[in-house]
Amino acid sequence: MTVRKLFLLPGDGIGPEAMAEVRKIIAYMNSEVKAGFETDEGLVGGCAYDAHGVAISEDDMAKAMAADAVLFGAVGGPKWDAVPYDVRPEAGLLRLRKDLELFANLRPAICYPALASASSLKPELVEGLDILIVRELTGGVYFGEPKTITDLGNGQKRAIDTQVYDTYEIERIASVAFELARTRKNAVCSMEKRNVMKSGVLWNQVVTEVHKTKYPDVRLEHMLADAGGMQLVRNPKQFDVIVTDNLFGDMLSDVAAMLTGSLGMLPSASLGAPDAKTGKRKALYEPVHGSAPDIAGKGIANPIAMIASFAMCLRYSFNMIKEADTLEKAIANVLEKGIRTGDIMAEGCRQVGTSE
Amino acid sequence: MTVRKLFLLPGDGIGPEAMAEVRKIIAYMNSEVKAGFETDEGLVGGCAYDAHGVAISEDDMAKAMAADAVLFGAVGGPKWDAVPYDVRPEAGLLRLRKDLELFANLRPAICYPALASASSLKPELVEGLDILIVRELTGGVYFGEPKTITDLGNGQKRAIDTQVYDTYEIERIASVAFELARTRKNAVCSMEKRNVMKSGVLWNQVVTEVHKTKYPDVRLEHMLADAGGMQLVRNPKQFDVIVTDNLFGDMLSDVAAMLTGSLGMLPSASLGAPDAKTGKRKALYEPVHGSAPDIAGKGIANPIAMIASFAMCLRYSFNMIKEADTLEKAIANVLEKGIRTGDIMAEGCRQVGTSE
Ligand SMILES: CC(C)[C@H](C(=O)O)[C@@H](O)C(=O)O
Ligand SMILES: CC(C)[C@H](C(=O)O)[C@@H](O)C(=O)O
Repeated sequence: MTVRKLFLLPGDGIGPEAMAEVRKIIAYMNSEVKAGFETDEGLVGGCAYDAHGVAISEDDMAKAMAADAVLFGAVGGPKWDAVPYDVRPEAGLLRLRKDLELFANLRPAICYPALASASSLKPELVEGLDILIVRELTGGVYFGEPKTITDLGNGQKRAIDTQVYDTYEIERIASVAFELARTRKNAVCSMEKRNVMKSGVLWNQVVTEVHKTKYPDVRLEHMLADAGGMQLVRNPKQFDVIVTDNLFGDMLSDVAAMLTGSLGMLPSASLGAPDAKTGKRKALYEPVHGSAPDIAGKGIANPIAMIASFAMCLRYSFNMIKEADTLEKAIANVLEKGIRTGDIMAEGCRQVGTSE
Repeated sequence: MTVRKLFLLPGDGIGPEAMAEVRKIIAYMNSEVKAGFETDEGLVGGCAYDAHGVAISEDDMAKAMAADAVLFGAVGGPKWDAVPYDVRPEAGLLRLRKDLELFANLRPAICYPALASASSLKPELVEGLDILIVRELTGGVYFGEPKTITDLGNGQKRAIDTQVYDTYEIERIASVAFELARTRKNAVCSMEKRNVMKSGVLWNQVVTEVHKTKYPDVRLEHMLADAGGMQLVRNPKQFDVIVTDNLFGDMLSDVAAMLTGSLGMLPSASLGAPDAKTGKRKALYEPVHGSAPDIAGKGIANPIAMIASFAMCLRYSFNMIKEADTLEKAIANVLEKGIRTGDIMAEGCRQVGTSE
């Protein structure tokens, strides 16, 4: 029997509550369809800091490296606002992304039909919305050096961050975007600020080149990132796949997520390159939402984003397409039946807690 | 009689058409209220490149430096997409900002009541919206060095951009934001990515310090820039003044502008520090919209953003508050009467051209 190794990192805030629901699905799949999932669990973020003084321990990093897929909840909260920069909760997530080389972050912004009215946009602009943001995740200003604060004397300090992109980094993320576009509406929009940033100039050139040589069948458009933010608000349905760098991707995917009205429902996948021998790729799946410390521990958090992240895991790490479809269908069904957690409650719906 | 020196840089695309309308207002004010405006005019952007091979000539830079205020139209267009990076149309605007030390970019995102329905957001979310984005304009990744593309051999290139902020740069823009908040709803929201960027850490510290020592009466909130983008879409009316860095300000002000449904109507002001002796500050005023090459020369462009930029000029450069109010009132009146250019046409309105 295939063994499928999952490493669970529930993290802080509502992470553990949401992960508990995924654990039920894993158990169900093991007993009902002999899925062969083996799970292990670790600490990341504030809880790891409390236990070990770091945002993730070496031991847990090793387990993450060895797993077929990592399921990640959420990190952070006011309790850890003052911990040193290097061990702040986010550092655990950033280290996982970097050390596992998860360069491709897939963030679907879909609008569940049952939730279209929850969007702040007019319903006709978001009904049926289905965008996939492909964000570069291991480069750019997140990891470039120097990244320092220097004391200049005279009460002055100087802070420096560095955005660095090499050709190969842009090539591989562009390829992921074009490949995915072929399974969708076959259109990619690449966003950067080539009018201001040299990394934007290179980004634009490399994406253009990858398109010409390998994916001429896919429609490609280039947009300045600020104009892209505008167009997302004006008419989001014009987009199919958006490919962009780490920092623009952070902002644009959050804006896109909020447009859908389904923010608490949105999953994400972070993927590495396929291994040359096995074809397997390292992967981490996490909800787009954060740790929501204000509602943590109350049993009211919406577990759908975490569950949908597991559906992405079935699809991308284990090629269990049928199971992924079934799970996603189950989510849509529940929403259509009007069964809702508090964050998406509406007239005429029945309010339930996390576990129900 | 006071002499007020204006330097006009209409630029490319619809810039000249929009500027022509402001010229009429200047002439009117000179003859009717003896405003004493003296105007001179230069080239910037693509038209400057065509004439001189640069995005702005030394001669025009000198005139901009000597003027009391610069009125700027728009730059760029497909015609100049392939010109060398250093002389691309945007380089003219960036040089003006840098050499005139226009560190404070004020971008009001207001929703004209008559246009609330033009927003892609639900009308109740944007009716009465009045946000002021205060964007740092002479620092950050726009101007930091190194800013290079290097050939690494093997077909690989490396692009580098550098975000640099010093304490004094953050102090002065924070002070502008707090001062302006006092004339409004007395609330400032500062946005950065301190969880990822060292410049975000310093930004957060300095804004906090300026607040504590000089503006404790103003309400201050800190928000991560990605969450800020989300909140702008979810509930924009929660904001009064937003202060942020050059790159985040570029994106966030565009998103905010698009929310209002009044994009073609929005002005901006870019201000320097008051001169130690005269108290005068260098200033440049420009519409938020671009050069719109697709409709240029047709006489159908909306001149309101350019006119509203001149109203900001009256207010901030010449302290002509009454005249600025009158001009802004005139804009609102025209909109309420249902007189509209094509970009904001609606049922029951009368469509007019630029000059009408
Ligand atoms: C938690 C934080 C470091 C992270 C990021 O900035 O990438 C988050 O905002 C995200 O988008 O996953
Ligand atoms: C034209 C361009 C260089 C400019 C910028 O990025 O600052 C524009 O987008 C703006 O916001 O004024």
